[in-house]
Amino acid sequence: MRIIAADTGGALLDDAYNPVGLIATVAVLVEKPYRTAALSEVRYADPFNYDMSGRQAVRDEAFLAAELAMKLRPDVVHLDSTIGGIEVRKLDEPTIEALTITDRGKEVWKDLAKDLQPLAKRLWEEMGIEMIAIGKSSVPVRIAEIYSGLYTAKWAIERARDEGRIVVGLPKYMSVELRPGKIYGESLDPREGGLFGEIEAKTDGIGWELYPNPFVRMYMVLEVWRE
Amino acid sequence: MRIIAADTGGALLDDAYNPVGLIATVAVLVEKPYRTAALSEVRYADPFNYDMSGRQAVRDEAFLAAELAMKLRPDVVHLDSTIGGIEVRKLDEPTIEALTITDRGKEVWKDLAKDLQPLAKRLWEEMGIEMIAIGKSSVPVRIAEIYSGLYTAKWAIERARDEGRIVVGLPKYMSVELRPGKIYGESLDPREGGLFGEIEAKTDGIGWELYPNPFVRMYMVLEVWRE
Amino acid sequence: MRIIAADTGGALLDDAYNPVGLIATVAVLVEKPYRTAALSEVRYADPFNYDMSGRQAVRDEAFLAAELAMKLRPDVVHLDSTIGGIEVRKLDEPTIEALTITDRGKEVWKDLAKDLQPLAKRLWEEMGIEMIAIGKSSVPVRIAEIYSGLYTAKWAIERARDEGRIVVGLPKYMSVELRPGKIYGESLDPREGGLFGEIEAKTDGIGWELYPNPFVRMYMVLEVWRE
Repeated sequence: MRIIAADTGGALLDDAYNPVGLIATVAVLVEKPYRTAALSEVRYADPFNYDMSGRQAVRDEAFLAAELAMKLRPDVVHLDSTIGGIEVRKLDEPTIEALTITDRGKEVWKDLAKDLQPLAKRLWEEMGIEMIAIGKSSVPVRIAEIYSGLYTAKWAIERARDEGRIVVGLPKYMSVELRPGKIYGESLDPREGGLFGEIEAKTDGIGWELYPNPFVRMYMVLEVWRE
Repeated sequence: MRIIAADTGGALLDDAYNPVGLIATVAVLVEKPYRTAALSEVRYADPFNYDMSGRQAVRDEAFLAAELAMKLRPDVVHLDSTIGGIEVRKLDEPTIEALTITDRGKEVWKDLAKDLQPLAKRLWEEMGIEMIAIGKSSVPVRIAEIYSGLYTAKWAIERARDEGRIVVGLPKYMSVELRPGKIYGESLDPREGGLFGEIEAKTDGIGWELYPNPFVRMYMVLEVWRE
Repeated sequence: MRIIAADTGGALLDDAYNPVGLIATVAVLVEKPYRTAALSEVRYADPFNYDMSGRQAVRDEAFLAAELAMKLRPDVVHLDSTIGGIEVRKLDEPTIEALTITDRGKEVWKDLAKDLQPLAKRLWEEMGIEMIAIGKSSVPVRIAEIYSGLYTAKWAIERARDEGRIVVGLPKYMSVELRPGKIYGESLDPREGGLFGEIEAKTDGIGWELYPNPFVRMYMVLEVWRE
């Protein structure tokens, strides 16, 4: 099975390890044996000007995933939204009302559905590809999350070349490692069965350190600097 | 301390990784240091004709565990039912009514108790062995779950010799490995302190692959085929 | 950043692995890279005469942490109480009433605040150090918990020299290892990013075994004996 999934993650941190804004929305193509991405695409956000409500993230993820799906024609598209694995093309007002989520969540989804339902319908009608809001249960969504951490590291390296030192927070329980010509990362949760990723990046002349965020257990901080 | 526990797990999967039905009910005898089974016994279910409500599973587990307890006389019997570590012989209607579980759960237990309470009473009166519904908190129950994964792998191998290829889902975050003359398996959660198991099985002439179920994070799929 | 945190853990167990009482309240100083303690201090409780409500623990932790903070002047003090990362000096009655915790929890905190609020105010006014009730989200609190397990092992060794054999329960998913002249311990949860600790201890002439508590999944039992 060929699955496209998208997620947003990685945050610029201030001196007290507080998140300023999110950094990377990533879509990935995942194929059997479902442990890494065959292909990944990134859109960087502006962390200094970020809507932390989560609405921007879901919209960006849906559009990036749909774009990739048009090109690669997967069997299905997974979005990181835990509303019960529902098909996005079916998200009209009565369906959203019937979801077992908070009233606030319903308002968000009614707003989101205006853009996302037509998008999902088009994917379905033109290509027979279903877009589902499956959330945390999806392994490809977790792989997209790991890639958002990899691209966050890449973003940090590039900025550090100008600014000297950058501190970012990675998505939950994952590590990254700067290697010659690339960035490698993996899930720190062995229950996930060995999920990992790798992207190309210029890593020479960059020092780095990875350590636990002292205020948020199970999240790692990556610090990079120009050497 | 000598503990007998039972659990049911492992599922036959269809082409889209959906469960068709459960495969193996297993009872185990666990002794100090409580990391694996000293002895295990299996009853295979018919996954093509399976009551997925969970009622069949609990009943099968109780009877298989009781049968083994009659022979091996452990200190206690653990069932995989999270109703607060209660003694099954005490499960009369008022006690079930007072449990902090759903109304649906109460109906299920009133029905189950008809068979299980007399069974637990007999164990207690004849042998002084308590049967308790301890659920996920019990390490022996988790070991029984791991063994249900091992026997699921064995079942899959035997069917694959006839049918060519079989795909099964293992219980949560565990792996299996086919070795010459046996199947080895272990928990993927290191917090559990190193739980594992091993059973004998003819593994020659069988190819296999283990990978994450893309739709259900933390669950592994085992594919086996005749070579 | 320099953080002081405190926690209480480790329990004396009876023959059926039931906790008799808690053993060690520990305060630690944690510095970047936040994986272990630069310094630790212990107060042993009397497990045979222990208030298991948790009230004694929080009070002991706050006073031990405050004492260490007076000497070491950290940036902040973390307590293991999950009431939303609130500043303890602000915990007056209306603020406690507004917390989203149980009524029982509110009563406990109103009682605790009588001692703790003045303590936190003094820390803040005299030294500019904030004491916050951050709980499980704090990495330094988890490190304090790991150290409470190390000191529990030390306590067990010392008692075993007199009594022959002692059985204790460690804090959740952590292991310990007796080495020549010291006790080493680490988190069994790799998602935490490699948290560990070490204390000095006379370990000669002591045998030991570590294994899962069969009744409480993810908790280890340490047995030590005079050889």
